[in-house]
Amino acid sequence: MTRRLNFSSGPAALPEPVLRRAQAALWDLDDSGIGILEHSHRGSAFRAVIDRTTEAIRQVAGIGDDFAVLFVTAGATHHFTMVPQNFLGEAETADFCHTGIWSAKAMEDAQRFGKVHVACTAAPAFDTTPQVQTYSTKPRYVHYTSNETIYGTQWAVPPANPPAPLVCDASSDIFSRPLPLANHGLIYAGAQKNLGPSGISLVIARKDFLANRRANLSPLAYYTTYLDHGSMYNTPNTFGIYMMGEVVAWIRDQGGLAALGERNARKANVLYDFLDHSKRWRAHAKPGSRSAMNVTFRGATPALEAAMLARAEERGLSGLAGHRSVGGLRASIYNAFPEEGVHRLVQLLDEVEREHG
Amino acid sequence: MTRRLNFSSGPAALPEPVLRRAQAALWDLDDSGIGILEHSHRGSAFRAVIDRTTEAIRQVAGIGDDFAVLFVTAGATHHFTMVPQNFLGEAETADFCHTGIWSAKAMEDAQRFGKVHVACTAAPAFDTTPQVQTYSTKPRYVHYTSNETIYGTQWAVPPANPPAPLVCDASSDIFSRPLPLANHGLIYAGAQKNLGPSGISLVIARKDFLANRRANLSPLAYYTTYLDHGSMYNTPNTFGIYMMGEVVAWIRDQGGLAALGERNARKANVLYDFLDHSKRWRAHAKPGSRSAMNVTFRGATPALEAAMLARAEERGLSGLAGHRSVGGLRASIYNAFPEEGVHRLVQLLDEVEREHG
Repeated sequence: MTRRLNFSSGPAALPEPVLRRAQAALWDLDDSGIGILEHSHRGSAFRAVIDRTTEAIRQVAGIGDDFAVLFVTAGATHHFTMVPQNFLGEAETADFCHTGIWSAKAMEDAQRFGKVHVACTAAPAFDTTPQVQTYSTKPRYVHYTSNETIYGTQWAVPPANPPAPLVCDASSDIFSRPLPLANHGLIYAGAQKNLGPSGISLVIARKDFLANRRANLSPLAYYTTYLDHGSMYNTPNTFGIYMMGEVVAWIRDQGGLAALGERNARKANVLYDFLDHSKRWRAHAKPGSRSAMNVTFRGATPALEAAMLARAEERGLSGLAGHRSVGGLRASIYNAFPEEGVHRLVQLLDEVEREHG
Repeated sequence: MTRRLNFSSGPAALPEPVLRRAQAALWDLDDSGIGILEHSHRGSAFRAVIDRTTEAIRQVAGIGDDFAVLFVTAGATHHFTMVPQNFLGEAETADFCHTGIWSAKAMEDAQRFGKVHVACTAAPAFDTTPQVQTYSTKPRYVHYTSNETIYGTQWAVPPANPPAPLVCDASSDIFSRPLPLANHGLIYAGAQKNLGPSGISLVIARKDFLANRRANLSPLAYYTTYLDHGSMYNTPNTFGIYMMGEVVAWIRDQGGLAALGERNARKANVLYDFLDHSKRWRAHAKPGSRSAMNVTFRGATPALEAAMLARAEERGLSGLAGHRSVGGLRASIYNAFPEEGVHRLVQLLDEVEREHG
């Protein structure tokens, strides 16, 4: 059976060696005689899984003891609530870098808990990551979305000189390059792009940032509950944690985050170079702000785009339609997406362009 | 490779034919050329999965259009918060049937949002499901835990004559027998006992009950958000939904809930009969309140219990230690646990009893 080339924006392609290992683990985890889905989270076999997953994450990203590594059974949208609920008092202000639909959703939810200040905005085109921020006087934290999946922009470096800890939604580029921890209070990421399946998120947070929290929330609303209970106050998403561990071990085997960062830049550049030289295709994001994860682009005409999408499906290339809210095309080429696949895409874009010249 | 006999209380044994199908689907879902973990939740392949899962659940449990079937990326503990947050005003009262550690946790969280009245209690022994309830004057809802995983009790029928809609934590016995929908406003269940992997829960709720909700919560805090968006306001736990669909299809293949209910009663009775006739082993729960899912029992001496647990591990029987908070032994024998496994357990209990007579 030939698998299709999967450009999905998430859930997205996973490393094939990891899928093969997961198939075996469904039946029998680590020669325990019980599958990964069936193991008690309190038993020694799963204890080994969560420990090795945590250790691999710490090692591959260079995370020290001042930071917590937490597994939360939820996607990133849940953290749009959980972050202000934990840290933003009614009279306090959170600063936001507004780069698209995801930052808008995060802001909208934060407004339920406190005040929101837009420190910079890429509206209305959302084709850049703004280089100048105008922070509020005394923000509680500064939130940014490191990679904007829908518009295809990515911060080359985090917002500069933040007057408060950075909070980062890193769902769509975590572990695609070295992780910048400096100035960060909390980083959250839904797993379904670079880390594993949907239904679980990874949180990397300064312990002293987590401790300074609001009062009287339910246990699972606190990040500190996950910290105090090793992410097992209640039954965690055990399969999600297992998969993250396997994916991060694969990242280590690929040479780690620096090596992946180089490979990802090379993959994206192949595509952006083609688009910049094409007469009929055009990249959406501006140089300097372009995502290495989600390459968004338009054809000169709707007919060209439709022809390309149809041809792609025929040739085994899936998931190239842009997000329903913006249209166009989008190639999501996360860590596990093969380099050769980008070349196949460029060949096909070229072929369709010549036919519709 | 011989798999062990898994008495884990959850995550727990799953049907082996389902595991075999899931192994194949990890690589290639339904001949789509893409694995279940890698499919976009917005694509047609996953749409087919969530539709067939919902349909199978409705069919097997006889759920009509007046009820919603929702998939929430969270365990039951999350609903301890979400239920009162949605439905319990500060001045309102929720009635609780208190049958153990899980009902206590649910009550504790409800007290953050409104008032709590204990309509009946099985404290301190927690070996019954109380038959007499003293409801408050005008409760908002009446909460009960249909099966108590830790103490091993189970309601033979739901609390009688409730003056308000019943809310049921059915995590550990959902779909183990016909589902009583009458008088119920909302039923929630973490998946990891009878439905699939951990990290997802099933909610079955009257639509008119859901609609009467409190104001100004975050989108994911509302059950109605799941209803309005087909459980896809944000990326759901796609693998969890796939697995639930496979497990429920397996339930249908077994003859449905009535057939499973008979099989489960037969399995449990083998064990309770042995315990009731044993001189050295004793069931914890009283007849009439005994769980068909979690059979809790004690040995005459700690030495007998220790000998049994050690012998069980040698013989390939796993997960028989009681919950860390109560000790003793516990055999969790959910839907997927094979009938023959109960006979093996009884033989071993008998063998150890004779040796330690």
